[in-house]
Amino acid sequence: MIITMIENATELEVSQIVEHLAAGEFQSRISQNGRVHIAALGKGRAEEIEKLRRFSSVADVAKAEQPYVLASWQMKPERSVVRVKAVEIGAEKAVIMAGPCSVESREQTLSTARFVAANGAVMLRGGAYKPRTSPYEFQGLGIEALKILREAGDETGLAVVTEVMSEEDVETVGQYADMFQVGARNMQNFALLRKLAKTRTPILLKRGASATIKEWLLAAEYLLAGGNENVVLCERGIKTFETATRNTLDLAAVALAKELTHLPVIVDPSHGTGVRSLVAPCAKAAIAVGADGVIVEVHPNPKEALSDGAQSLTFENFAALTAQIAQPIRSIASLN
Amino acid sequence: MIITMIENATELEVSQIVEHLAAGEFQSRISQNGRVHIAALGKGRAEEIEKLRRFSSVADVAKAEQPYVLASWQMKPERSVVRVKAVEIGAEKAVIMAGPCSVESREQTLSTARFVAANGAVMLRGGAYKPRTSPYEFQGLGIEALKILREAGDETGLAVVTEVMSEEDVETVGQYADMFQVGARNMQNFALLRKLAKTRTPILLKRGASATIKEWLLAAEYLLAGGNENVVLCERGIKTFETATRNTLDLAAVALAKELTHLPVIVDPSHGTGVRSLVAPCAKAAIAVGADGVIVEVHPNPKEALSDGAQSLTFENFAALTAQIAQPIRSIASLN
Amino acid sequence: MIITMIENATELEVSQIVEHLAAGEFQSRISQNGRVHIAALGKGRAEEIEKLRRFSSVADVAKAEQPYVLASWQMKPERSVVRVKAVEIGAEKAVIMAGPCSVESREQTLSTARFVAANGAVMLRGGAYKPRTSPYEFQGLGIEALKILREAGDETGLAVVTEVMSEEDVETVGQYADMFQVGARNMQNFALLRKLAKTRTPILLKRGASATIKEWLLAAEYLLAGGNENVVLCERGIKTFETATRNTLDLAAVALAKELTHLPVIVDPSHGTGVRSLVAPCAKAAIAVGADGVIVEVHPNPKEALSDGAQSLTFENFAALTAQIAQPIRSIASLN
Amino acid sequence: MIITMIENATELEVSQIVEHLAAGEFQSRISQNGRVHIAALGKGRAEEIEKLRRFSSVADVAKAEQPYVLASWQMKPERSVVRVKAVEIGAEKAVIMAGPCSVESREQTLSTARFVAANGAVMLRGGAYKPRTSPYEFQGLGIEALKILREAGDETGLAVVTEVMSEEDVETVGQYADMFQVGARNMQNFALLRKLAKTRTPILLKRGASATIKEWLLAAEYLLAGGNENVVLCERGIKTFETATRNTLDLAAVALAKELTHLPVIVDPSHGTGVRSLVAPCAKAAIAVGADGVIVEVHPNPKEALSDGAQSLTFENFAALTAQIAQPIRSIASLN
Repeated sequence: MIITMIENATELEVSQIVEHLAAGEFQSRISQNGRVHIAALGKGRAEEIEKLRRFSSVADVAKAEQPYVLASWQMKPERSVVRVKAVEIGAEKAVIMAGPCSVESREQTLSTARFVAANGAVMLRGGAYKPRTSPYEFQGLGIEALKILREAGDETGLAVVTEVMSEEDVETVGQYADMFQVGARNMQNFALLRKLAKTRTPILLKRGASATIKEWLLAAEYLLAGGNENVVLCERGIKTFETATRNTLDLAAVALAKELTHLPVIVDPSHGTGVRSLVAPCAKAAIAVGADGVIVEVHPNPKEALSDGAQSLTFENFAALTAQIAQPIRSIASLN
Repeated sequence: MIITMIENATELEVSQIVEHLAAGEFQSRISQNGRVHIAALGKGRAEEIEKLRRFSSVADVAKAEQPYVLASWQMKPERSVVRVKAVEIGAEKAVIMAGPCSVESREQTLSTARFVAANGAVMLRGGAYKPRTSPYEFQGLGIEALKILREAGDETGLAVVTEVMSEEDVETVGQYADMFQVGARNMQNFALLRKLAKTRTPILLKRGASATIKEWLLAAEYLLAGGNENVVLCERGIKTFETATRNTLDLAAVALAKELTHLPVIVDPSHGTGVRSLVAPCAKAAIAVGADGVIVEVHPNPKEALSDGAQSLTFENFAALTAQIAQPIRSIASLN
Repeated sequence: MIITMIENATELEVSQIVEHLAAGEFQSRISQNGRVHIAALGKGRAEEIEKLRRFSSVADVAKAEQPYVLASWQMKPERSVVRVKAVEIGAEKAVIMAGPCSVESREQTLSTARFVAANGAVMLRGGAYKPRTSPYEFQGLGIEALKILREAGDETGLAVVTEVMSEEDVETVGQYADMFQVGARNMQNFALLRKLAKTRTPILLKRGASATIKEWLLAAEYLLAGGNENVVLCERGIKTFETATRNTLDLAAVALAKELTHLPVIVDPSHGTGVRSLVAPCAKAAIAVGADGVIVEVHPNPKEALSDGAQSLTFENFAALTAQIAQPIRSIASLN
Repeated sequence: MIITMIENATELEVSQIVEHLAAGEFQSRISQNGRVHIAALGKGRAEEIEKLRRFSSVADVAKAEQPYVLASWQMKPERSVVRVKAVEIGAEKAVIMAGPCSVESREQTLSTARFVAANGAVMLRGGAYKPRTSPYEFQGLGIEALKILREAGDETGLAVVTEVMSEEDVETVGQYADMFQVGARNMQNFALLRKLAKTRTPILLKRGASATIKEWLLAAEYLLAGGNENVVLCERGIKTFETATRNTLDLAAVALAKELTHLPVIVDPSHGTGVRSLVAPCAKAAIAVGADGVIVEVHPNPKEALSDGAQSLTFENFAALTAQIAQPIRSIASLN
């Protein structure tokens, strides 16, 4: 159930409702944006919900329309803006996150960070712990990579996002990163989600390669229900029968996710396509469809990259991408 | 093999090569755009290809890099523009095709045609023969619908595209339509493709719901190899596990198809998503990714449509779509 | 609506009901198995259905529970057995159909037919008209192949099944074949289905590579509604993200189709897997899951096959397959 | 690289090779089945591999043919049998694991365990920690459930398999369970795999809902490379466009996995289909295709199950399933 408070409800009035719900064995989650909305979660005593209507501080009591209660518009009727240091994701302007797939060296990471910072990026991405299909592939530099990312972020002013794969690494990664990334393979690693939900660090939640939009939003709900509201969704392609691209980038899902939830949504056209030449047109299409930003892989020398070389942009490609996004789209033909 | 002629090769020189190939049991297909390119098709005698290098009119002999020889850039190194009456598909401006899923009545079709013509469309779409999953669903008005479409096209100046489902209907449909549509279910109906290839009427070839990009281009190749060069590709979504949308619109496939072939590519966001509210953002994303146009379903009263109501735009929605495409896309945030 | 007649309804009584329905603008389809069932199809006057209850010859009037009315159990409460010459598909024993992907020569086809006839097959398969992804691939020998198949069938006693791809070939193929095959690509070629429905020749309807079970049964319904009751379904694998097999063989779909319809269902493990070594285990699993038979590709020399060599069985493989099917399946361990 | 030792290589000879490899910066993994095979892992100095040929104890040095070196036949040329208490998985007889989706109460679990133990099962399954799509669904009884499972296993003699979802729960679950289950969602939770690899407890590794066979075997390789050889693979259906079943059970993948690896493979037809009536036919087909066993969900009262009721067998269904597996499969029709 979702309780909408009257316009100028006081803190006292809000806490009265929360106490009433607690007495009825409901948990509460509060969303405060002008109006206060309270979600009553769990299997409490339904009759206590009915009694809420008698409180003069309560404007409305409604059934949750979506299973992802906290992520839905009902609970928060305005777009969420997630702040990562100075960066605002979900605000008026779209954001570009860029950087190498894996942090391979200080030199590689710093040079990339400098270039992307000078060419339109506001956040630095880079893998320290890499989820690799084979145990014999490069698994990332770990803490050493985290330190390099921190240095690169501090020098350039870019906020840093990096993946955390293990519950046991949450604390360490949190010391260096400005934003956690939950990778596609871990979208339904509920133990990891529960642990991350206890932090206040923003989280970039990638859609699983075979996750429905509903499953994706429910994964976000694990984070919100666990107490972390700073969630950004990331579409990165789904697995289909098509083999010419690494995944099938689902841009309609971006438009749909933005209809279903107040959370910001960005797009990863690098993993979404796996093909360098498709990254820029798909990044532009992502912004056109309504995404709040894109995250792309950039490498000083993609041919020598330890991972994802085929989809990594060169510096030149990256500069071309930001230029291409800025250009107007094709105009429409008319009769006569 | 692809034979590139010298810059000012004469008709005589070209026909000498064609004769030489015929003697070697190869078929020829000629593409003429400034330079003449000749594709040698079939399993002829390889040694005759080698002899071609001795002709002074031959600039180059190269292996075909793609299995869809005629659709590839090698055979025609400039974008194809397909002309449907006054409309140019693949030229500088993007085109909008719009109209009802099914032609249901003269009134419905004419009113829709008038509205879309006045609001940015240059072509009218509408089904006369409908491929329906069940034999008990509305199957289209047939010839009556073709006559209505022709009337609507003539009155408004819109060129008319409509689906042909049967080899036996090719002649009839060709009498009324300006462009044939081959539906997704018939993309690999090779008997139909062969028959259509013998006409000179432009063809809109929809991608099958589970066709790879390669299979789609090879279906186009059936048309080109059969003698019809006026082929426009149409991405309309592929089948995936996602159920929140009717199909998964594959916009990266549009960018990739345009890399692989000289043929124009348009997008159908109505079937591609199956959700009315997603049509406009996906249409805009389609243009942004490089599509040469979009085809959308519009109905005076979608709730009463005999087919595809959930994805049909109202007149108001259609006007909003063209307005939305014209607006600039979001700009990019920068570091302070 | 489905009308169940009383147990010993006379022809006269049945025709009275049919006339009554016709007067109410319903079409009728009759199924006669002990009890007569009549399906009232189309959008007639609902009140006429109600009046049916007053006829003493009518035992029950019920709503159709499935969209594929004629294929459902409601309309025919016993398994259909489709007879193809002496072969009974859907009867107590499972049937094996075998033969080359394409008819390549008289010698190849006759030797294969003789071998499979002597080793457990009761029907011969072989392609005369081949649906090929590329226009430049071998397209089949056409009528010449039909004649070879007929000769091989007559000599060995095998009934002959072969694909028909074009409305225009229906008559010709019907002169030579004992059973039409509708290929996966043509499952929703409704023009072809309508034409085949007018014949009385049995039809093997392959499931489309991306067809849901419901779509598949509705394609069968086109045949039944058009007047041809001799329909056998064939599961042949669906398109998924998996690339180690050509398709993903959906054996649960076989069990489900047999729950939903009275039609026989067979399985094609050759196309279903695309891998020679998987054909025999999957054929056995198909019989175990409840299939009424299997259809497999056999070639005297798969390495030189003009199509589908990788999945074709050698003669030796085929003999091993029939032997493997006959062996008992593994027994179950128990707690001592 | 894979080093095959001579037939009667001594421990000393084996350790000499391991030391030589270590000096060349290779890691070693040893497989001992009559012949000793040593896998040289990592990026050591290639020239040291060459020198191995000079050792008289070395019979052969060969390149690994598969990326999943330790799981491949090259490394272990005989089927692995994984022992879970008295149960042998991968041995002559197939095994049945059965039990409730979730442990809901002592009574439910004990009654189910007693019934399945008396009717053909040798292992008990049951969820203590449940991976649930929504944070608001029943998440399992945790340690309390583990204790109930242990009690039920001890009383009935059934070995106990249960899912572990969190790195932090590995130790606790290991105290109660005889076999860990890694769920489909965690197949590529590499942090969890690495932690489990350090135990000696057998592991049931479910295939991810969108994992290719190669990805699945590489996930197993994480376990083997980490030191745990007691790995059993479990096919449980993949995500496709089909909605009539919960997943598409990929039985060809079972036959293929058994060709590619020495590890035992079982099948979960409950999750694989999501439909009660399909569980028994698919279980039988699984054994027929070559699976080493099946794992099925059984509940005293599926309608009241807290999870997966629609696919859970009743006690009666379970007894029918074991009976059905024991019956011979249909015989094959022959010509006259």
